[in-house]
Amino acid sequence: MNLLEERIKKDGKVINNEILKVDSFLNHQIDVELLNKVCKELASKFNGVDKIITVETSGIAYAVGISQHLGNVPVVFAKKSKSLITDEKNLYVKEVKSFTRKTSSQIYIDKSYIKENERCLIVDDFLAEGNATMGLVAICENAKAVITGVAIVIEKKFQGGRKRILEKGIHLESMAVIEKFVNNEVIFAEK
Amino acid sequence: MNLLEERIKKDGKVINNEILKVDSFLNHQIDVELLNKVCKELASKFNGVDKIITVETSGIAYAVGISQHLGNVPVVFAKKSKSLITDEKNLYVKEVKSFTRKTSSQIYIDKSYIKENERCLIVDDFLAEGNATMGLVAICENAKAVITGVAIVIEKKFQGGRKRILEKGIHLESMAVIEKFVNNEVIFAEK
Repeated sequence: MNLLEERIKKDGKVINNEILKVDSFLNHQIDVELLNKVCKELASKFNGVDKIITVETSGIAYAVGISQHLGNVPVVFAKKSKSLITDEKNLYVKEVKSFTRKTSSQIYIDKSYIKENERCLIVDDFLAEGNATMGLVAICENAKAVITGVAIVIEKKFQGGRKRILEKGIHLESMAVIEKFVNNEVIFAEK
Repeated sequence: MNLLEERIKKDGKVINNEILKVDSFLNHQIDVELLNKVCKELASKFNGVDKIITVETSGIAYAVGISQHLGNVPVVFAKKSKSLITDEKNLYVKEVKSFTRKTSSQIYIDKSYIKENERCLIVDDFLAEGNATMGLVAICENAKAVITGVAIVIEKKFQGGRKRILEKGIHLESMAVIEKFVNNEVIFAEK
């Protein structure tokens, strides 16, 4: 087990057979020491990155942390709600279903911030069904950017996101890969 | 002018007499090099911090960056929407009006993540009327935490947030302080 898997064993709460609660260290309270180590490790798996793409909210901290180990490349985060100053005519938009919220929402990125041939690394805190990640993949494809890979903090392998990403031929790295939950316990995938 | 003020002059867009658009480097695309420098400078103004409190979305990256210069203290970000796994019975909740969105929404923090007497530094990307910041202040007060200060990336001084924070006797530091907008130009406050 790596340090993140150990932390999940210690502080993660298995809510049911599908959902793991990690808000004491990952997506409500953030353990910044852990984040620094996870980001350094994930960043070491990739090179040739011009830009990091994520989606609000919980991915942002990790996207910035990974950037800090890849030459401080810019981070772009897809937004979920529009403000008075959103330029509606210049957006990549994608419909995305949230796994834990059971709702569907639009995510968007201003077209100015992903350029043709830019080498983009997609980052997110969780990979479940892969809806958010595949939404970002689709936006990068629309922008004719090059997808260098996908970096995930915690992956729930049994929910299918991995399969969708690999089918696209995209390089995927997850810091912790969960095989399944059994009796409220987390079973990690063999490496 | 400091490096952030120079960047605002160069890439910020004054939308009207109240709103500055900085999404090319601050709150949609993030210039991580700039973020590192801003966070180092803001962190240097505070010490004795146990925890950093912010609110999703755009404050998160800066909260983590400041933490990295204050011993990697934990970051807690208030959330704006509940998920299936939110523990409804254990929340500090506050109603907050958004300045740029003209909507009102609830922000909440799980009570487990702010403790009595914890020395909290509140961080946000923007200070306008101070609604979000004062919401976080109220939550810290409810938790009987100690508010060490408020660190802001860009402050629009003429919108009143500063006054509300200082009236509470709270130490406020902003990296860029905007006095006003004149003919679509940004005028910074005298230091």
